[in-house]
Amino acid sequence: MARRIKLVVAYDGAPFAGWQSQLHRNTVQDQLEDAIKRITGSEIRVHGAGRTDTGVHALAQCAHIDLDSQRFTPERLQAALNAVLPPTIRVLRCHAAAPEFHARFSAKGKIYRYRVWNAPVLPPLENGRAWHISDPLNVETMKLALSKLEGRHDFAGFAANRGKHTSGTVRTIRAVQLKRRGPFLTMVFDGDGFLYKMVRLMVGATVLCGEGKLSVTDVAQRFGAATRTGPRLVAPACGLFLVRVRY
Amino acid sequence: MARRIKLVVAYDGAPFAGWQSQLHRNTVQDQLEDAIKRITGSEIRVHGAGRTDTGVHALAQCAHIDLDSQRFTPERLQAALNAVLPPTIRVLRCHAAAPEFHARFSAKGKIYRYRVWNAPVLPPLENGRAWHISDPLNVETMKLALSKLEGRHDFAGFAANRGKHTSGTVRTIRAVQLKRRGPFLTMVFDGDGFLYKMVRLMVGATVLCGEGKLSVTDVAQRFGAATRTGPRLVAPACGLFLVRVRY
Repeated sequence: MARRIKLVVAYDGAPFAGWQSQLHRNTVQDQLEDAIKRITGSEIRVHGAGRTDTGVHALAQCAHIDLDSQRFTPERLQAALNAVLPPTIRVLRCHAAAPEFHARFSAKGKIYRYRVWNAPVLPPLENGRAWHISDPLNVETMKLALSKLEGRHDFAGFAANRGKHTSGTVRTIRAVQLKRRGPFLTMVFDGDGFLYKMVRLMVGATVLCGEGKLSVTDVAQRFGAATRTGPRLVAPACGLFLVRVRY
Repeated sequence: MARRIKLVVAYDGAPFAGWQSQLHRNTVQDQLEDAIKRITGSEIRVHGAGRTDTGVHALAQCAHIDLDSQRFTPERLQAALNAVLPPTIRVLRCHAAAPEFHARFSAKGKIYRYRVWNAPVLPPLENGRAWHISDPLNVETMKLALSKLEGRHDFAGFAANRGKHTSGTVRTIRAVQLKRRGPFLTMVFDGDGFLYKMVRLMVGATVLCGEGKLSVTDVAQRFGAATRTGPRLVAPACGLFLVRVRY
């Protein structure tokens, strides 16, 4: 009988065309499925908690697999996977899960972090790991804009593929946080679910507010299917980190 | 008349064959000289405070150039250089220096940092930025070993090219520090000068002590040209960061 195994996976998004398997593209899911095939000899589907786009990083993405082979304890599977995966993908934890556990459908929420480097020069070691914005940002205005996003709303205006979500476009953002530490701005979004490019569109709107190009009222009016006012900006993928999936 | 300009430069060491110019190799000095030529049209030699090896990072390397052209203020030169350099190299500061200032000969000392990730799994975003050591290290023994390195000693036993230093092999380490924060070990070396691969050899010896493969007494006996006892280990370049050059 197959055992269900939960995997916690971290990756550097830079070299990958996102999480989800694609023909002729180098994705994290493909890398994991290839590694599992090399180890077990079987084609086993890896079910992720959700997709991440090209260039988005993960500190703790979650996934599950159904393993027929009894040869591997979760600990041995983890070690074997890390031995064949590239160092840009690591299995942080691996353990037996209940048969009804599903990485995607059991998820209660996710936490994302977005990093902005707000100073004229981006340090080389932050390259590909933060959004570089040279001009000063008004952090207080940004905090106000972010506070409007908290709570239960129709986030259709913050989705890249509006109307195409089978599960509707209403989501709850439990908490949003913005911290400044020197030139670093870190935004944290804790929500029950996120639409396609929703975090990057929320960050984009927040930054536009911080630049004075969008008003906080415009952000609040973007909820629902109402006509959008003001510019729209998708924050670059490189500043986005999937921090945790809550179950 | 040529003006002397001081540059403070940061770089991600991963893509480069070190600092110093080499035929047919991609080095930081070559990148800087190419960028200056593109901007000014002149072949101008960049004098660094010291070399860093392939893969070693710099948070603030220093260099100087002599600029004939009056077209560039230091601020404009900095902006122009950053516009043509790859994002893995950034000029952090650029200002006029006294004619007698010399990046190498005026340097009073340097500060290096070395990072070790001491846990079974290395997070992907630390790949290439820390030495991954899975097995537990005895941090107290390591601190004791490091304390032996402080002060004025003949560091010939901690140089990769013993005896080939024209300036002799006696150096002063003003301060050494080791801090543990979770799985991260950070070692900081503040000294008046460092021999070839000296920091990596000191870190290697310290780690061997932490693994119980070398005694603290062996470390202390390695000073001078006396016969070396115990194993010798060069810590990998990827964990090493040139933090600052003191003038």
